[in-house]
Amino acid sequence: MAKRIGFVGLGTMGLPMARNLLRAGHRLRAFDLDPARARMLADVGGATASSACDAARGAEVVITMLPASRHVEEAVLGSGGVLEGLEPGATLVDMSTIDPATTRRVEAAVRERGARMLDAPVSGGAIGAERGTLTIMVGGDAEVLDQLRDVLAAMGTNIVHCGPIGLGETVKLANQILGGTAMVAVAEAFAMGIRMGADPRVLLNVISQSTGNCWMLRQAPVPGLTEEAAVNRDFAPGFMVDLMHKDLGLALQAADEHGLPLTLTAVAHQLYGLASRHGYGRLDVSAVARLLEGPGELLWGRPPAPPGRPVRP
Amino acid sequence: MAKRIGFVGLGTMGLPMARNLLRAGHRLRAFDLDPARARMLADVGGATASSACDAARGAEVVITMLPASRHVEEAVLGSGGVLEGLEPGATLVDMSTIDPATTRRVEAAVRERGARMLDAPVSGGAIGAERGTLTIMVGGDAEVLDQLRDVLAAMGTNIVHCGPIGLGETVKLANQILGGTAMVAVAEAFAMGIRMGADPRVLLNVISQSTGNCWMLRQAPVPGLTEEAAVNRDFAPGFMVDLMHKDLGLALQAADEHGLPLTLTAVAHQLYGLASRHGYGRLDVSAVARLLEGPGELLWGRPPAPPGRPVRP
Amino acid sequence: MAKRIGFVGLGTMGLPMARNLLRAGHRLRAFDLDPARARMLADVGGATASSACDAARGAEVVITMLPASRHVEEAVLGSGGVLEGLEPGATLVDMSTIDPATTRRVEAAVRERGARMLDAPVSGGAIGAERGTLTIMVGGDAEVLDQLRDVLAAMGTNIVHCGPIGLGETVKLANQILGGTAMVAVAEAFAMGIRMGADPRVLLNVISQSTGNCWMLRQAPVPGLTEEAAVNRDFAPGFMVDLMHKDLGLALQAADEHGLPLTLTAVAHQLYGLASRHGYGRLDVSAVARLLEGPGELLWGRPPAPPGRPVRP
Amino acid sequence: MAKRIGFVGLGTMGLPMARNLLRAGHRLRAFDLDPARARMLADVGGATASSACDAARGAEVVITMLPASRHVEEAVLGSGGVLEGLEPGATLVDMSTIDPATTRRVEAAVRERGARMLDAPVSGGAIGAERGTLTIMVGGDAEVLDQLRDVLAAMGTNIVHCGPIGLGETVKLANQILGGTAMVAVAEAFAMGIRMGADPRVLLNVISQSTGNCWMLRQAPVPGLTEEAAVNRDFAPGFMVDLMHKDLGLALQAADEHGLPLTLTAVAHQLYGLASRHGYGRLDVSAVARLLEGPGELLWGRPPAPPGRPVRP
Repeated sequence: MAKRIGFVGLGTMGLPMARNLLRAGHRLRAFDLDPARARMLADVGGATASSACDAARGAEVVITMLPASRHVEEAVLGSGGVLEGLEPGATLVDMSTIDPATTRRVEAAVRERGARMLDAPVSGGAIGAERGTLTIMVGGDAEVLDQLRDVLAAMGTNIVHCGPIGLGETVKLANQILGGTAMVAVAEAFAMGIRMGADPRVLLNVISQSTGNCWMLRQAPVPGLTEEAAVNRDFAPGFMVDLMHKDLGLALQAADEHGLPLTLTAVAHQLYGLASRHGYGRLDVSAVARLLEGPGELLWGRPPAPPGRPVRP
Repeated sequence: MAKRIGFVGLGTMGLPMARNLLRAGHRLRAFDLDPARARMLADVGGATASSACDAARGAEVVITMLPASRHVEEAVLGSGGVLEGLEPGATLVDMSTIDPATTRRVEAAVRERGARMLDAPVSGGAIGAERGTLTIMVGGDAEVLDQLRDVLAAMGTNIVHCGPIGLGETVKLANQILGGTAMVAVAEAFAMGIRMGADPRVLLNVISQSTGNCWMLRQAPVPGLTEEAAVNRDFAPGFMVDLMHKDLGLALQAADEHGLPLTLTAVAHQLYGLASRHGYGRLDVSAVARLLEGPGELLWGRPPAPPGRPVRP
Repeated sequence: MAKRIGFVGLGTMGLPMARNLLRAGHRLRAFDLDPARARMLADVGGATASSACDAARGAEVVITMLPASRHVEEAVLGSGGVLEGLEPGATLVDMSTIDPATTRRVEAAVRERGARMLDAPVSGGAIGAERGTLTIMVGGDAEVLDQLRDVLAAMGTNIVHCGPIGLGETVKLANQILGGTAMVAVAEAFAMGIRMGADPRVLLNVISQSTGNCWMLRQAPVPGLTEEAAVNRDFAPGFMVDLMHKDLGLALQAADEHGLPLTLTAVAHQLYGLASRHGYGRLDVSAVARLLEGPGELLWGRPPAPPGRPVRP
Repeated sequence: MAKRIGFVGLGTMGLPMARNLLRAGHRLRAFDLDPARARMLADVGGATASSACDAARGAEVVITMLPASRHVEEAVLGSGGVLEGLEPGATLVDMSTIDPATTRRVEAAVRERGARMLDAPVSGGAIGAERGTLTIMVGGDAEVLDQLRDVLAAMGTNIVHCGPIGLGETVKLANQILGGTAMVAVAEAFAMGIRMGADPRVLLNVISQSTGNCWMLRQAPVPGLTEEAAVNRDFAPGFMVDLMHKDLGLALQAADEHGLPLTLTAVAHQLYGLASRHGYGRLDVSAVARLLEGPGELLWGRPPAPPGRPVRP
């Protein structure tokens, strides 16, 4: 059933997600601080709002997709923000990855206004956003989620209820701890292996059947090793180093508030920070390998042997 | 075709591997510093050797399965060692996980004697050793491997040629970098998630479909979460903290000799070292979570909710 | 010249600081959430305020000495807070160690009210607070500082102007980076040295004349090695593990906001966090050595050889 | 009393040390793999040996000053090495920084030959070597040291007996743990402080009077801040990043053999390794700050304000 949706935040992720909502037959009024982004949506049938408040007015559902906690706070609670326009009974769905404490603070304000809120961060990257195949991790009331399932289904194929408000963010951050450390470990394992003479195809083949197997293995930054690795496209993201750095920072902060040290995560966080400082922040996470490599060598650029060469006897 | 095999090192891994060789019809003469271990093999039909040299004499294949580089050096090159008994034309198969530089040094001595050598470290743990389902990573001449494939097939189901001598060890260490860091990351991700209110079954379910998925996820130390996790058996290994600590140390040393820093691996190595110091060294790797937890709490001991409770709407 | 001073926060540091102000002849009205603390000051001549606002009313100077950023925000900007009672022309001196961004936010609110603010965190610990020998690092207008120099001189002997508002906090955090990492390094250096047979007195003697010399060296946790080390008093602080953990967290957060990774500091931060989790949080920073040691040994408890034994030939 | 000295290893440290021995009136026969180095000594009166063995023949004292454990093993125990020429009753003084286990292995061989050995690593860098002001940390028999005190006094002003054989190395490594971590911490503290607006002179002034004070503070890589900092000479060492990386690696290995994790040291070791990979290996240790900085900025290059500007009111 088509819904009236307000959409705030038309970035790399938000724009293709909004397009998919339009395609699914929903009516959209969207706002972005950059008018050029809003026009890109207008081209395919979306209406343009003059503010976050304006986007929220008259909407059954308001979706926010913003870079960080402070943007969500400002866009929802700030002057001219969503809260000023949000109808009682409407639902705010924040799909940004932010810290769960902010989520709970925003939800309290939304509830006070007589409206409802879900947190619904995603994984799957720009490609998942375009194809509508995101995984969506939802926190909040299960009934509210059920009423909005058709809306979310326009953007993602795997919609999981993770618990009460804030738990979507929590599960997302737990996933980032694993993905973020794994990417660094892939870089280190392949650097060591290749440097000691191993064929990267053997490394991929053996490890993917062993205790070291992980999703990020197929992002190993060796040109031509897998089709999907960002290294084949000059590290065009995918998922950016700077965003992984931000997400791991959120996980560390959340854990710290619970008196929980996360030592390995802290070091991965620092390594992404160093990678960013060395100029790789807007590249794909797999470019963290470039930090390890240093500027003067082409460890990863070594093309694998031609296909004819036998790898396994 | 049944072979005459000398076997040196009847520890937790070596003994079940030797038994599988007997079951497959090979003839064995085995040596262990601890005579009690040799008797355990004699009970099922193996002959007992009085030294490593004695085990090697007359054998077509000599297998060594020892804890660390220095044990291999001593058992092969030392006085009363394999080398003194090794027949020209015989093959030494070292299945220990040691540093590849030692492997190459030993191989040179073996070659000088007119014999041959493969390095063939395994993954799969004590259970894989018992069931004969190990993964065996082989370095050395492909033809030599082909001649011994039936011997290795008695112990493992996945036999991979990784390249010239030493490359079996190298690929094994690359795998350990990934598995070793992943186990710590699993502990950190679940600690954070559970502490913030997430249901561990939701964490497992969502992450196993996302970018954070990894083999070690199913070893998450939450009682009852998966059947195979060592936490359900008081952290009985599986694969010990102390061995993971040793293997990551080998990876770091090998990389350092190539001028390659492995920062994340180094920190995981230290955390396993701390876990060992705090008394968890002979427990399963997943007990590294106990270090994170501290002594005064039962984060991981919290039983998950009864099966009836709906996790996903 | 005696001044009318409002004082908020009578903890381990605040109470002796307030006493020193009374001794120097200033008039005090003090507030603490715990009435028992206020009574301890009343015993020596201080007046008791019913709230932070009440303490501020009529005061020329208001001093806050609180655990963390959120306490300062609440005590100053919150309902019943300092700001409601602060006289135009009065000066707020925040002597807490908090993040410089909070300092600037609070200062803006104070300025808007027509009052003035300095940030003036201290170093020197509980002993320095009692003896009035603190180092006080001051951010804000130099003229304002000059007018209050006699007030600060009652609490500290080393008063340094560090720059505009927030710079007192910044310099304090930079100092904590060095002191916090040094304490861990002292623990590691002595653990290694002692374990390998070195006499701790030789370690202290040689290193204090070499490139490894640092202030924290004299806090090496070897009983009897120096008189001042907290290990001699069952690790009674001194400066607590939990406070060092908090301060390093502030430094990391501040640096992160400037896109600056601090990898070594991040690991020290984690180690203090682990030490806290293992039950050492309210002990002196030097107790971080207990984490390294593990529960089952008495590395640090080994008494040094009797004084008669010659250490140097 | 003048002695007949054999000297092996005329590198950056060894050559000026040998010169100082000549100046003090000792007779020298020296060997270096690079004949050009030996000629540089011949110019000032040293005799040239054709091998390490040749240098040892007829000498009362043989001094070795070599880069790493394997060079010492080779130069002493190898074919044509010191041991072949060493006279019974002579003393080998190894002044290299190597791992204490190697020291003990070499000492056992020397003792078997009827000769004696001291380990005597130094601190003080190339400048200390030239000026003869090194600190010399001596392990071995105290009486042997007393007999050679005049020889050592030609090279260093601070000669400390640290205990039995190997303890000189041990104490040296303990010092490196502190100096090596401190240098990284100095870089991080100044980076954070300067980035947040602090005047580097205030940082130096305040911290040098506080708990963060350390020897390395005066090596803070801010041009013009202190006279002695290597940053003023384009990071010409001083003490090289690569040597600090080596020494911290030795400390980690030694501790590991005693089951002792050194987590902070391990991370400092990795950061020097990364700095080396990024091209700073042969610069002064303070160049580790360049890694933190990244290639695109000139944080450290910002000249401090002209001397006229008031730093403290």
